[in-house]
Amino acid sequence: MPGLTPAELDELLTFTTALARTAGELILEGSQAIQQASASDIGEKKNSVDLVTEYDVKVEELVKREIAAAYPTFQFIGEESYSAGSRPPLTDAPTFCVDPIDGTTNFVHAFPFACISIGLIDQRRPVLGVIYNPFLDHLYSGVAGHGSSLSRAGGAPQTLPLAPARPLPSLSQALVAVEWGSDRTAPAVTKKAESFTRLAGDPARGIARGRMAHSLRSIGSAALNFAMVAQGGLDTYWEIGCWPWDVCAGIVIAQEAGGFVTGGKDAPHDGDVTEGILTGRKYLVIRAIADTEGETGLEAQKRIAREWYDTVEDVPLDG
Amino acid sequence: MPGLTPAELDELLTFTTALARTAGELILEGSQAIQQASASDIGEKKNSVDLVTEYDVKVEELVKREIAAAYPTFQFIGEESYSAGSRPPLTDAPTFCVDPIDGTTNFVHAFPFACISIGLIDQRRPVLGVIYNPFLDHLYSGVAGHGSSLSRAGGAPQTLPLAPARPLPSLSQALVAVEWGSDRTAPAVTKKAESFTRLAGDPARGIARGRMAHSLRSIGSAALNFAMVAQGGLDTYWEIGCWPWDVCAGIVIAQEAGGFVTGGKDAPHDGDVTEGILTGRKYLVIRAIADTEGETGLEAQKRIAREWYDTVEDVPLDG
Repeated sequence: MPGLTPAELDELLTFTTALARTAGELILEGSQAIQQASASDIGEKKNSVDLVTEYDVKVEELVKREIAAAYPTFQFIGEESYSAGSRPPLTDAPTFCVDPIDGTTNFVHAFPFACISIGLIDQRRPVLGVIYNPFLDHLYSGVAGHGSSLSRAGGAPQTLPLAPARPLPSLSQALVAVEWGSDRTAPAVTKKAESFTRLAGDPARGIARGRMAHSLRSIGSAALNFAMVAQGGLDTYWEIGCWPWDVCAGIVIAQEAGGFVTGGKDAPHDGDVTEGILTGRKYLVIRAIADTEGETGLEAQKRIAREWYDTVEDVPLDG
Repeated sequence: MPGLTPAELDELLTFTTALARTAGELILEGSQAIQQASASDIGEKKNSVDLVTEYDVKVEELVKREIAAAYPTFQFIGEESYSAGSRPPLTDAPTFCVDPIDGTTNFVHAFPFACISIGLIDQRRPVLGVIYNPFLDHLYSGVAGHGSSLSRAGGAPQTLPLAPARPLPSLSQALVAVEWGSDRTAPAVTKKAESFTRLAGDPARGIARGRMAHSLRSIGSAALNFAMVAQGGLDTYWEIGCWPWDVCAGIVIAQEAGGFVTGGKDAPHDGDVTEGILTGRKYLVIRAIADTEGETGLEAQKRIAREWYDTVEDVPLDG
């Protein structure tokens, strides 16, 4: 089966962008419904939790229905369908890979970093991604080989990264994104806390192996972290335990902005997002780095990836 | 000396809001200059670091000059003036308390959470606050006794919190903001990491004293964390080591949105922001909580403050 043509991808981008905006309206409606329900939720949380699931399912059904109407031969992998038992194997066929609401905890709490993430896989590689945060009206998109962009508040798309690529001498100069995630067992939480301590701590003031990064950020949405690295607002983002639908769109957007995407500690850190990386549930993404005398940007990204994995602990999955 | 009248505060709000927007334009200009300089900054960071200080000083000078012209009898406390040795004692007189760029690390990295924070103290209490994030065009303001609001993208002001107050049964239901801060010595970093581990960890899965909060967020600006709690997008925010100019405006905005502001572990957690709390460099803010049967919102906020300080370690200042 041949891959999608550039013309087909272009048409798919138009379709996916419109779909993301429509889904965004439904997400905003859900957020308001949840805030209202929570306020009248005296001492129990059943109402608002039910509403979260209801809107997660509603958004995924909307997206699935629109895709089935426009692209009936395409495969579909979605968070809610997967949870409900639909787990089609990845094939060479074009496959939409969708997280209806990425950043669900943020969505519940009205912390304005939740989004819909629509990725498209072709020939087992992510080839198109659209991420839309309706709370800030930020729409990110990318197509393999055609770059990525950000449209803010309905404005014209701006090419990513937003500013020329900068050098990155070491993690000590970096603003890094990390997340506490949903696995709160001792093995996961303590390995993360040790890793974060090294990233933050000053090696000259008592933190062994400390890197003293400029700082650490946690915004709570995998898709929006990938997008922020693509934009150039974060230098790195490290995630453990999320799923292909959380990152598929973000991978394309980051790569097309010159970003480097790799997997966990033992992955080959060559920037090639194979099926193994896509489904490996451990991700590291590094922003575009400028070429400098004696080192290309790609060499610099590989150097930062090595420094990263020399610093952090390997965090077990579903500990 | 009598305090400011409501009419004077109203006029001051108009003045401060316009000033914050003007300062915001200068911050955006600085951000672009820094991004350009960083890209040509091969292997050294002198240029961009100099530019950060330059714009921090420029913004503070602009604000100080405008205030001196409009309110020549008012006192002024600003981050840059303080660093340069100007440390007037707090008096009963009206005193502007200004952080020209809050979230400096974000500003440097083009992570879009930096702002100007302009607070006004009268009779030793914060009475007015304006926080403006020019990257997202979010303007927060509050006046003692008159509520607080958020204007997004030039739109009409919306009263804070944005949704009706919800209950908060315990920290296990909370989305909490914490920051790694600038003190990276072992005493500070390890106490923070222990605290964050307890906030995140599951007590039933190996984390002693774990609260298993919904999640932890770190956005890197004290002023914007206060504003986000006021908005209702975060349940709590805890900070150690920042200064009155980082929090003065945020305190008014949070309190006027029904938020509860207190100091470190040993402060009287009664919600009264005395001079001691304002200058104490340790802050805890809790969003408006709905009254429920048998517990007022204020009682619930005090309960959450106790649970907070039963959970976290006391972090030393400037360890």
